[in-house]
Amino acid sequence: MTEKELPKPPYYAVIFTSQHTGQDEEGYENTGERMAALAETMPGFLGVVSTRNSEGFGITVSYWESEEAIRHWKANAEHTAARAQGRANWYEQFAVQVARVERAYGFTRSRRDD
Amino acid sequence: MTEKELPKPPYYAVIFTSQHTGQDEEGYENTGERMAALAETMPGFLGVVSTRNSEGFGITVSYWESEEAIRHWKANAEHTAARAQGRANWYEQFAVQVARVERAYGFTRSRRDD
Repeated sequence: MTEKELPKPPYYAVIFTSQHTGQDEEGYENTGERMAALAETMPGFLGVVSTRNSEGFGITVSYWESEEAIRHWKANAEHTAARAQGRANWYEQFAVQVARVERAYGFTRSRRDD
Repeated sequence: MTEKELPKPPYYAVIFTSQHTGQDEEGYENTGERMAALAETMPGFLGVVSTRNSEGFGITVSYWESEEAIRHWKANAEHTAARAQGRANWYEQFAVQVARVERAYGFTRSRRDD
């Protein structure tokens, strides 16, 4: 689900849900790629998943070791500038929830070669 | 972002990320609609958001008043049967995180009529 395997809980998740305006898709995509690469370099970053449908409704969840790591990422100057662009151009609305992951589990389809 | 307004934190989020097989899309869609309607009737249900891209990668986040409400929903017989169908047919893989939302904020674009 993410490039990196998540550790055992507890850890933190930032749930970002957004409705896009549809304006400046190229700028949005470029900045999104840059922010993903930048987040990877942040202390305490654990991974990110993101998806968006054809109507422009998206959900991104990023995972962090601590609330302190989340605050540090939020304070990053380039990230702060990107968020301002988001409010100015890309998002009709968004919501953010910061949550402490208490437990986690998963499923992977087993493969048979026969 | 959801049909219902979320209350002030704390409350709980179930983050469900999934890669679809692409098999039985109609069954998946029908069951998903039924599960959304059923979840609405569950005690402690606060809302749900869901999106999926053209490659079949989806994220659904449902919101609940308490861990007890989440356990009650998980134990629902029809929901349990739907999850078994998911593992059998619809999901290549999925991950679930149960998280306690500590804080939340949002943004809505302001409208000008001029």
